[in-house]
Amino acid sequence: MTVKELREQLITWRRDFHQYPEKGFLEMRTASIVADTLHHLGFSLQLGKEVMSEAECMGKPNDEETKAHIEWALDNGAQEAYMDHFSEGYTGVVASIDTNRPGPTIALRFDMDALPIHESEEANHIPNKEGYRSKVPNTMHACGHDSHTAMGLGLATLIAENKEKLQGKIKLIFQPAEEGTRGAKSMTSAGVVDDVDYFIATHIGTGVPHHHFVAANNGFLATSKLDIQFDGIASHAGGKPEEGKNALLAAASAILNIHAIPRHSKGSSRVNVGEIHGGSGRNIIASHANLLVETRGETSEINDYIKDHVFSIVEGAANMHQINYGIDVVGEALDCKCSVELAEIVQKCADSHAVIEKSILESNESAGSEDATYFMEKVQQNGGLATYCVFGTELAAGHHNEKFDIDESSLLVGVEVLYQAVKELVVTEIKR
Amino acid sequence: MTVKELREQLITWRRDFHQYPEKGFLEMRTASIVADTLHHLGFSLQLGKEVMSEAECMGKPNDEETKAHIEWALDNGAQEAYMDHFSEGYTGVVASIDTNRPGPTIALRFDMDALPIHESEEANHIPNKEGYRSKVPNTMHACGHDSHTAMGLGLATLIAENKEKLQGKIKLIFQPAEEGTRGAKSMTSAGVVDDVDYFIATHIGTGVPHHHFVAANNGFLATSKLDIQFDGIASHAGGKPEEGKNALLAAASAILNIHAIPRHSKGSSRVNVGEIHGGSGRNIIASHANLLVETRGETSEINDYIKDHVFSIVEGAANMHQINYGIDVVGEALDCKCSVELAEIVQKCADSHAVIEKSILESNESAGSEDATYFMEKVQQNGGLATYCVFGTELAAGHHNEKFDIDESSLLVGVEVLYQAVKELVVTEIKR
Amino acid sequence: MTVKELREQLITWRRDFHQYPEKGFLEMRTASIVADTLHHLGFSLQLGKEVMSEAECMGKPNDEETKAHIEWALDNGAQEAYMDHFSEGYTGVVASIDTNRPGPTIALRFDMDALPIHESEEANHIPNKEGYRSKVPNTMHACGHDSHTAMGLGLATLIAENKEKLQGKIKLIFQPAEEGTRGAKSMTSAGVVDDVDYFIATHIGTGVPHHHFVAANNGFLATSKLDIQFDGIASHAGGKPEEGKNALLAAASAILNIHAIPRHSKGSSRVNVGEIHGGSGRNIIASHANLLVETRGETSEINDYIKDHVFSIVEGAANMHQINYGIDVVGEALDCKCSVELAEIVQKCADSHAVIEKSILESNESAGSEDATYFMEKVQQNGGLATYCVFGTELAAGHHNEKFDIDESSLLVGVEVLYQAVKELVVTEIKR
Amino acid sequence: MTVKELREQLITWRRDFHQYPEKGFLEMRTASIVADTLHHLGFSLQLGKEVMSEAECMGKPNDEETKAHIEWALDNGAQEAYMDHFSEGYTGVVASIDTNRPGPTIALRFDMDALPIHESEEANHIPNKEGYRSKVPNTMHACGHDSHTAMGLGLATLIAENKEKLQGKIKLIFQPAEEGTRGAKSMTSAGVVDDVDYFIATHIGTGVPHHHFVAANNGFLATSKLDIQFDGIASHAGGKPEEGKNALLAAASAILNIHAIPRHSKGSSRVNVGEIHGGSGRNIIASHANLLVETRGETSEINDYIKDHVFSIVEGAANMHQINYGIDVVGEALDCKCSVELAEIVQKCADSHAVIEKSILESNESAGSEDATYFMEKVQQNGGLATYCVFGTELAAGHHNEKFDIDESSLLVGVEVLYQAVKELVVTEIKR
Repeated sequence: MTVKELREQLITWRRDFHQYPEKGFLEMRTASIVADTLHHLGFSLQLGKEVMSEAECMGKPNDEETKAHIEWALDNGAQEAYMDHFSEGYTGVVASIDTNRPGPTIALRFDMDALPIHESEEANHIPNKEGYRSKVPNTMHACGHDSHTAMGLGLATLIAENKEKLQGKIKLIFQPAEEGTRGAKSMTSAGVVDDVDYFIATHIGTGVPHHHFVAANNGFLATSKLDIQFDGIASHAGGKPEEGKNALLAAASAILNIHAIPRHSKGSSRVNVGEIHGGSGRNIIASHANLLVETRGETSEINDYIKDHVFSIVEGAANMHQINYGIDVVGEALDCKCSVELAEIVQKCADSHAVIEKSILESNESAGSEDATYFMEKVQQNGGLATYCVFGTELAAGHHNEKFDIDESSLLVGVEVLYQAVKELVVTEIKR
Repeated sequence: MTVKELREQLITWRRDFHQYPEKGFLEMRTASIVADTLHHLGFSLQLGKEVMSEAECMGKPNDEETKAHIEWALDNGAQEAYMDHFSEGYTGVVASIDTNRPGPTIALRFDMDALPIHESEEANHIPNKEGYRSKVPNTMHACGHDSHTAMGLGLATLIAENKEKLQGKIKLIFQPAEEGTRGAKSMTSAGVVDDVDYFIATHIGTGVPHHHFVAANNGFLATSKLDIQFDGIASHAGGKPEEGKNALLAAASAILNIHAIPRHSKGSSRVNVGEIHGGSGRNIIASHANLLVETRGETSEINDYIKDHVFSIVEGAANMHQINYGIDVVGEALDCKCSVELAEIVQKCADSHAVIEKSILESNESAGSEDATYFMEKVQQNGGLATYCVFGTELAAGHHNEKFDIDESSLLVGVEVLYQAVKELVVTEIKR
Repeated sequence: MTVKELREQLITWRRDFHQYPEKGFLEMRTASIVADTLHHLGFSLQLGKEVMSEAECMGKPNDEETKAHIEWALDNGAQEAYMDHFSEGYTGVVASIDTNRPGPTIALRFDMDALPIHESEEANHIPNKEGYRSKVPNTMHACGHDSHTAMGLGLATLIAENKEKLQGKIKLIFQPAEEGTRGAKSMTSAGVVDDVDYFIATHIGTGVPHHHFVAANNGFLATSKLDIQFDGIASHAGGKPEEGKNALLAAASAILNIHAIPRHSKGSSRVNVGEIHGGSGRNIIASHANLLVETRGETSEINDYIKDHVFSIVEGAANMHQINYGIDVVGEALDCKCSVELAEIVQKCADSHAVIEKSILESNESAGSEDATYFMEKVQQNGGLATYCVFGTELAAGHHNEKFDIDESSLLVGVEVLYQAVKELVVTEIKR
Repeated sequence: MTVKELREQLITWRRDFHQYPEKGFLEMRTASIVADTLHHLGFSLQLGKEVMSEAECMGKPNDEETKAHIEWALDNGAQEAYMDHFSEGYTGVVASIDTNRPGPTIALRFDMDALPIHESEEANHIPNKEGYRSKVPNTMHACGHDSHTAMGLGLATLIAENKEKLQGKIKLIFQPAEEGTRGAKSMTSAGVVDDVDYFIATHIGTGVPHHHFVAANNGFLATSKLDIQFDGIASHAGGKPEEGKNALLAAASAILNIHAIPRHSKGSSRVNVGEIHGGSGRNIIASHANLLVETRGETSEINDYIKDHVFSIVEGAANMHQINYGIDVVGEALDCKCSVELAEIVQKCADSHAVIEKSILESNESAGSEDATYFMEKVQQNGGLATYCVFGTELAAGHHNEKFDIDESSLLVGVEVLYQAVKELVVTEIKR
C-alpha cells in the first residue's frame, strides 16, 4: 500500500467506525470488522472470552441490551463469521504476529467504544457536512476511539507488509469499553499482556497541540466507579411508620459522609455522589435508593483510601437503619507511571518524523482517567516497560463534546510514529 | 323511577364510571355526564372555573397532559356540550335546586376522581369477570369515587322527583381531585359552600362493616403534600469541583432534618420524604434534586407545625449550599371536627333504614386524610353544621388495592339514607 | 406516739433529710438513719448489696465520688454502725416485719435521693425562712423524696406500734437513685419483691391538688437513658488528615439519625440527644465524642423500638468512620399498668380519711418516668397486684424547681392512708 | 559588646523568656522587658494600641484572664513603667531607629508568645537539666518564639552599636499572638509596615537542618480559625418537644456539611470541625452548641472559598432550625509569596556567613500557617519586598512538642546574618 493509499484507507476506516459507533461491550460490528481485517492481514486472532475475564468485566450492559444489539450489528455491516465470539458482549480482539525471530514481545492498545452523546446536527460540523455523521441517535465517537481503531488497523497493515524485516512478537490489543474505565481490567486478568516486554497505549487529542507529541502522559487519576443500592422495607408512612426501614435516611447519611471523607495529605483526591434515585411514593417509607458514585486519587493509594471509606460509610449507613446494601464496582483505573526508558525511545521516533513539530517527554497534566493503566501496571510488574503517548491534533471541540472532531491528517502521522517505534523496539533488548 | 329501577340505574352509572376512570383534574368525561344528567333532572348548574379558584388549585397535571386528555374524553363518551367548561382541567360541578320555599341550604359532596393503579386482570376480580373492568391502563376507581358519583346522581334523582315536597335549597357538589387532597380547597375558595347551613360528605367502605354506618368520622389527619426542588450548579466533579453548587448535599441534609422534626406533645404527627431523584451523572456535581414530602398531624395546628419546619429546613438546606429551591404545595387537607348535632340527625336517618344493621355516632379511627375538611371548616366558620359519614360495605380488597371492589347493594342504601337526611334537614332550623 | 407527736416527728424527719440531701447511690447518711430508726422499731433489715444487684445497677457515680462522700456523710450525722453496708454506694434498705400470722406479703416503696439543684436562697422560700434549707450547695430535695423517706419511717412507726393487730408480712423498701430511673432495677433483680403479693409505690405532689388522691397513676412513660461514646483516632487536621478517624462525623450522623427515628403508630414516643462533648482542639481530627441520650415511649414496647434503633444507629455511625463506640444504659424505666383491683382498695382507704377531699381511681396524665415500674412488673408477673398512688399537696413550685416545697400537713395524711391500706390488705386474700 | 558577650547575652535573654513564657496577648512581662531594653539601646518606641488595631485583634483572651495576668507579670519581673501600655493585652512593640540619612525603610518581625503546653519534666530535657525550664505550668515556649525575641534584641544591639554606619530607617516589630495566627493582622491594620520597603520575618527550626538557611519559605497555608455558636431554645424533650429549637441538629448538620465542602481544583485545602460542646442535659432540647473550626488553603483564594462555604453552611444550618448563630474569626493568615529579589540578597548574606553550611533560595515545604503574611502582603501591595527566612537548627523534638529545644549556637548566627542583610539593604535602592 502506498503512503497515499494508507492515508486514504485510514480515513475510510475512521469514517466507517464514526458512522456506526457502538458503546462499551457492544462493539460487535467494530470488533468483527477489526477481526476480519486483521485475519486477512495474516494476524493470529484471539477473540471475546479468550482475551477477557468474565469475572473482572465491570459495568457490562444487561443481557437484554446486549442481545438487542446483535441484530443491529448484523443489520449494519458486522462480519457474521465472528459474531459468535462477540454476541455476549465480550468484544475484545487480540491480534498477534510472531516473526519466529528472536526479539521482545511488543503490545499496543487501541480502544474501540463510543459515548452516549448525540452528535451535532449543525451544518458546520464537518462529519455532518461531509456525510459521515453518526447514524445512531445518542451515540457518538466523541473521544476519538474511531481514530484509534483505524490507527490500529493502519499499524497492522504496515507490520504485515514489513513482517519479514521485523523480529520478536507483536500484539495489537483492541479493547472494548474504555469509557467508564471498564474493559482493560478484564483483558489484563485474562493474561493478554503477561508475556509483553514493551507496551504502548495511545490517545489522539486531549489538549495537545496539532502535530505535537507526548511520549509519557502520567496525568491520569486512579478512579473507581461505584453503583450503590440500599434496600430497606416499605411501609405506609402515616399508618405504620415503625414497620418501615428507610432507605432514604441511609442514603442521605451516606451522601453527606461520603462527601466528608477527609482529604489525603499525599495528593489530590475527589469523591462525588452524582446521582440518586429512591423511593416509590410520597406516603411510603422508601424501601430502596440507588446512588452513582465516583472516587479519584492522584495515586492508586489515595483512590483506594477514598474507596475504602466509601465502602465503610455505605455499610455503616445501611446498618444504622437495619437495611441491606450492595456496592457494584462498575469501572476502575489505576494511576499512571510511564517507564521513562521506553518513553525516550518513542520520543526519538516521534522527533524523527518530518511532521511532528514538538515532542514532550513527560506530562503530568490531569487528563481524567484511563484503564490502559491496568495493562501498564501488569507489564511493569513483570519487568517490562510501558508508556502512554498522546498524538496532538486540531480539535473542533473538546473530548466528549457533541461537536468533537479531529484533523484526519494526524492518523497517518500516528501510524508512522508507532510503526517506527515498533521497528526500534523489536531490536531493543529488554533489561530485567 | 321505581326503587328497582333506581337500584339498577345506580349500578349502571357506577359501572360506566368504573370503566372510564379519570384521574384528578382530568374528570372531563365524568363531569360532563354528571352535568348533563343533572341538567335533565332540572338542576341549575355552575361549572368549571365558576366553582373553582384557579389560585387555590393544587397539584394540577401540566397543560400537555390536560390537553391530551380532552381528545380521549371526547372519544370515550364525554358530552361535548359541556367540554368548554372542563377542557382546562377545572372539572368541578355544582348542581342546585332552590325550592323557593323557606328553609336551610343543604350541601352534599361527592368526589369523582380515580387513581393511578392498574386494575386487576385476575379472573376472580368481579369487575373483570362481569365485564366492566377499567378500560384505561394504569387508571382505576380503586377508592369508590365511581360509587360516590353514582350515589350523587341517584340522590339527585330522588330530590328531583320529590322537589315539591322539599323546602330550602339543595346543592350537590361534585368535586375533582380528592386523591392527593387537591380539589376541595379550590372549590371552597370559590365560595361554593359560603351559603350552606348543613354540609354532608360521605365515603363508602373505609373499613366499616357491611351495612354499618358512621355518622361522624373524625379520624382524618390534617396533611400537606409538598414537592420540593433544589437547583444548584453542575460542574465536573473531577475537574472543577469548586464550581459546582451541590443539590444532593442540600437534599441529603433536608432529608435527615425533615425526618428529625421533633414530635408535638399535643398529638400524633407524621412526616416522610418518600421519593428523591437528583443528579445527572456519576462525575457531575448534581445541579438538581426533587423530593416528594408528606406531613400529617392529628390536628391542623400540628400539621402546620411540621409543615412550617419543613419550609425552614428546605430553605436552610438550600442556603447552606448557596443554591435555589422551590416548594410546591400539591395537596392539603385539614383535621376533621364533625358537628355532633348534625351527626345525630343523620344517624337517626340511618337507624331508621331497614337495611342498616348498626350505626356509630362518632368514630376516631384514623382513615388517612380528606379535603372535604375544607368545605366542613368553612361551613362551620359560618355557623353551619357539617359532618362526614361512612357507609360500610363488603370490600373485595382494601382501598387503593388493584382488586378493590364494593358490594353494589350499598349504593341504594346510601342514596336512601342521604335522601332521608335531606328531607329531615330541610325542615330543621339552624341555630346560629 | 400520739397523732400530734407523729405529725411533728414526720416534719422533723423530713426537715432533717431536706437539710442533708444526697444524690443517687450516695444516700449513705439517709440510709444509715433509716436503717437505724427501723432497727429500733423492731424491723429486720437487709442492706446494701443484700438488696441490690451490682450488675443491674445503672448510672452509679464513679468510685472517687463515692469514696469522697463517705467522709461527708460521717461528718454530717451518718450512723457509723451501718456505713460498711453503704460505703460502696449500694444504699438500698429493706425493712421487714413478719407477723408470723397467715396473710399476704405487702411491700411499699419509698425513694431517698436528691437532685443536683441549688436550693433557692430567696427570703420567701419557706425552707430558707424556717432554717431548714439544704446545707449542700447544688444539691436539693426538689422532688419530695425527703417527704417520701419521712413517710416511710412514719408508716413503720404505726406498723411497729400495731404489729400485734396485723397479719402476714410487711416490707418497707427504701430505694436509692430514683432520679434518672437508676436504682429500682437493681433491687428488683436482687429479688426484693419476689415474694410480694401487694405492692404500693407513692409520690407526693406531681400536680394533684392538695388533699386529692390518685389511686392508680398510669401516666408514666417507659424510658432509657443512654450514655454514648465514640472513640476514633486523632491526627493533625492539616498535616495528616487521612490518618484520623473522625468521631465528630460519627456523632453528627448519629445525632441526625437518632432524631429521625420514625414515630410509632401505637403511641407517643420521644427521643433526644441532649448533650454532646467532643474533640480536643481546632486543628485535630476529633478522636472522641460523648452523647447523652434519652428515649421514651408510651409503652415499653415503643420505648424498646426507639432504643433498638438508637443502638443500630450508633453502631452504624461508628462503622461508617471505622471507629469504636460504647453505649452505657445509665437509667431505665418501664411503662406503668396499675392493678385496678388493688387501686380500688387503696382508693377506698383514701376516701375514708377525713382530710382527703377527692379521689381518682385512674389517671393517665403524663408524669415523666418512674422506675418503681420494675417492682410493679415483677410483682404482677408473679401474680401479685401493684399500684402507684399520688398524694396531692400544695406545691410552692413545680418538681425539680429550686423553690419546690410541699405542704407538710400532707405527710401525716399520706402515712395514715397507707397504714389504712396495709391494715386492709393484710386481711385481703390474693387470688392467683 | 564583643561577639562572645553577644553570644552569651542572647542565651541569657532566651533562657529568661523561656522560664517566663506568656501566651498570646498576655506577653506583658516579655514586651515590657523588650521595650525597656530597646529604649536603653536608643530606639524610639511605639507600644500597645499605638501599633495594634483593636478592631482587627482576633482571638484575645477575655478581660478576666487578661486582668489576672497583670499581677503575675508584675510579680515576675515585668517592667512596671511600661505596663500601662500592655495591661489590656495589646502587647505589641515597634522600635525604630531613623539614621536621618537617605535610604530605605527596613522592618523585621519577631514574635513573642508561648503555647499552652506543659514543658517536659524529664531529666534529659536540657532546659530542665540546666535549670531554665518553664516556671509556668501548662505554658511553654515550644515553638522558639523565646529565641526569636532574643534574636530581635541581639539584632537591635548590633544596629544600635553601628548606627552611624547605617542609612535609612530600621523598624523592629515585636508581635504578640502569632500562635493561632491572631496578632499580625492587628499590627498591619494599625499601619506598622505602611512605610516599609523591605520586610523580613524569620523562624528558627521548622525542620531545616542545623546551620542550613532558607531565604524564602513559601510553604505556609492560608488559614482561618472560626468559633461558631448556635443558639436555639431549650425545652423539656419529653414534655414540650415542639417548643424547643434544637441547636444540636443545626450543629450536626453543620459538621457534616462543613466536612463535605468540595475540594478545589487549584490546590490543597483543609477543613476541620475540631471540637463541639453543646446542650445542657439529657432530657432538654439543646439550646446551644459551640464549634471550633479551622480552614486552610494552599492559596488565600482557596482558603476564602472554604471559609465562605463554612459561613453559608452555618447560616443555613441555623435557619433550618429557626435558631440564631454567631461566627467569630479568632485567627487568620494569608498564603506566602516571598519576593525573590529580596530573598536573593538575604541568601547572599547567609552564604557569606562562615557557619552557614547550605542555603536554599526557595522552599515550598508545607510548614503550617503564619500571620507574618499580613505584613508581607501589605509591604508588597505598597511596592516593597518581603521574605520569610528560616534558620535551621538542631531540634531536640519537633515544634509544639513538650521536649522542644534548639541549639543555642544558632542564635548568634541568626543575628549576624540578619544584621548583614540590614547592612546590605540600607544601601539597596528599592525599585517601584
